[in-house]
Amino acid sequence: MNLRDAFDTPVSAIVLAEGEFGTTGGKTANGVVMHSEIFETAAVVDSAQAGSTTDAVLARPDVPSVPIVDSTEAALSEAPEAEALVIGVAPAGGDLPESWIDDIRTAMRAGCDVVSGLHVFLSDREEWAELAEECGVRLFDVRKPPEEDALRVGDGRVDDVDADIVVTMGTDCAVGKRTTTFELYRAAREAGLDAGWVATGQTGIMVGAHRGVVIDRVPADFTAGVVEDLVVAVAEDHDIVFVEGQAALTHRAYSGVTLSVLHGAWPDAVVLVDDPDRDERTHFDGWPIAGVDSEIEAIEHLSEATVAALSTWGDADDVGADSDVPVANVYDADGPETLLEAVRTAI
Amino acid sequence: MNLRDAFDTPVSAIVLAEGEFGTTGGKTANGVVMHSEIFETAAVVDSAQAGSTTDAVLARPDVPSVPIVDSTEAALSEAPEAEALVIGVAPAGGDLPESWIDDIRTAMRAGCDVVSGLHVFLSDREEWAELAEECGVRLFDVRKPPEEDALRVGDGRVDDVDADIVVTMGTDCAVGKRTTTFELYRAAREAGLDAGWVATGQTGIMVGAHRGVVIDRVPADFTAGVVEDLVVAVAEDHDIVFVEGQAALTHRAYSGVTLSVLHGAWPDAVVLVDDPDRDERTHFDGWPIAGVDSEIEAIEHLSEATVAALSTWGDADDVGADSDVPVANVYDADGPETLLEAVRTAI
Repeated sequence: MNLRDAFDTPVSAIVLAEGEFGTTGGKTANGVVMHSEIFETAAVVDSAQAGSTTDAVLARPDVPSVPIVDSTEAALSEAPEAEALVIGVAPAGGDLPESWIDDIRTAMRAGCDVVSGLHVFLSDREEWAELAEECGVRLFDVRKPPEEDALRVGDGRVDDVDADIVVTMGTDCAVGKRTTTFELYRAAREAGLDAGWVATGQTGIMVGAHRGVVIDRVPADFTAGVVEDLVVAVAEDHDIVFVEGQAALTHRAYSGVTLSVLHGAWPDAVVLVDDPDRDERTHFDGWPIAGVDSEIEAIEHLSEATVAALSTWGDADDVGADSDVPVANVYDADGPETLLEAVRTAI
Repeated sequence: MNLRDAFDTPVSAIVLAEGEFGTTGGKTANGVVMHSEIFETAAVVDSAQAGSTTDAVLARPDVPSVPIVDSTEAALSEAPEAEALVIGVAPAGGDLPESWIDDIRTAMRAGCDVVSGLHVFLSDREEWAELAEECGVRLFDVRKPPEEDALRVGDGRVDDVDADIVVTMGTDCAVGKRTTTFELYRAAREAGLDAGWVATGQTGIMVGAHRGVVIDRVPADFTAGVVEDLVVAVAEDHDIVFVEGQAALTHRAYSGVTLSVLHGAWPDAVVLVDDPDRDERTHFDGWPIAGVDSEIEAIEHLSEATVAALSTWGDADDVGADSDVPVANVYDADGPETLLEAVRTAI
């Protein structure tokens, strides 16, 4: 999917993050507010935190300050110019709550395109497709995998691209891979490089990756082929391609997705992301984190890439004292530049 | 899928292997003829080799001798008692050739259930579903993945089973993993063990695995969870569970599937399958085989399993002279027993 080119960027957007803004469950919404090059957030809908502002909830540097309100109706009074509704959370259980249905309809009737990260695909449902046509708006289901007949098995054509390829991998899920990928891309652009990037999850697509597919929805036979196609497409227009990895090679639930991204992208270098304070896997109690050394060994054994740097959630100096590779925290002043420098040395 | 329990085994079957019997493309048909505990092959349909017999084409030990004919009509004259048509090859390009359609219809009208390994799902097509109802026969689409709402992410529940778990992995595709798994299972039964097995590909399901899913059709997020469910189900009724692996951890196109099977099954021991005469990957010219040592290192790094033995397509004595683990060829007289003994020592 190439969401970036579907909009005359940036467009003013309302971000639906009901009940989850600022939490791990709201990470897509959080990412869009902080980083999107497609959507400029005008208001966030989250009735649990209505009355507050985004920068008060997301205690990170450089967060834009926009109001949090309790409905899209309220958001539209704040931002009547909004042209998109971004659904940045998924409801527990799967089905859409009644109040969300009203919120989405209200935004569509006000002329907003809908960019959905829901597990259910709005564009497949007749009532939503009809309403979109009636309102003259578009529906983008970001999780939707490519059509079966567009899928193919990987064949190594990525070996022929001229661009350098860098994959961001991790020691766990939800450890900062998407953020690190984005910060590497931004630092490379600021350094004057012609950089592009590939998303493998919904947040990255909504944030503005040059190409992206929610890779864990693709039938397992085709995951590496899909990643390869994305990388080849972005490499046609750019000199260095950053690729968002998924999960961890040692993560028993999702490792197949992780390895497919590594093998599909077949990178020159890898940046590994770790949270030094995490001992157990997110959402998997009792499953220990295998750790940085174990992950590096697996990555370098199963690919031709060098692990060039460690992107840490912790104190870069503390972690760096024990590390064989350069370490930085992307939220530190020169963090992204330090990681980029290490990558450029390795490739 | 539990095809085994859907039949009052063994049932007399016609195997459709048009143009491919005895070739790698016909490996499902070959496997059914040689090994199925569900289907007793009464005739094979392959117009390219009509007039010959199965044992003349498959130059392996203990192959039953049945006629190869040019249509299901001819097969039904040979075997009017047939109760199933097994479609053991997939047509090039995807769509069903006209002559196959006639063959399948003829068998259904004669009262045969259809067990299909086709990429297209007959049970999803109205004309086939109607004909099946009219003829009072059943349609089994073996490649069909479980319904989305039956899928879940792996969670490690396999750690709680009492049975020993053994996964058969390989250095490439089409190297003998399914055959080795079956031979280990058969040797274990003959040794008096209460053994069961799990298939992850269509041939294994048709041959009679206790549970199976064509794992490469499952969305990547759920592959490990599906394998875990299959292993847990078979472990409820058996003391040792053999699991068919897929591809190779070092196979850039399919490695995600491989790692999902390893992590979903989380075995006590692994048997690695290798063809010592193969330097390049099957169907992937220019991709070298990483080799036995590299594969063992990856398996043991990414799991808690021991690689207990090597199942070789080559000369077991030659290969064994250079190996750190016991080696056997399953087609040698005591081959399966040697592998089983190594497994029992390791677990």
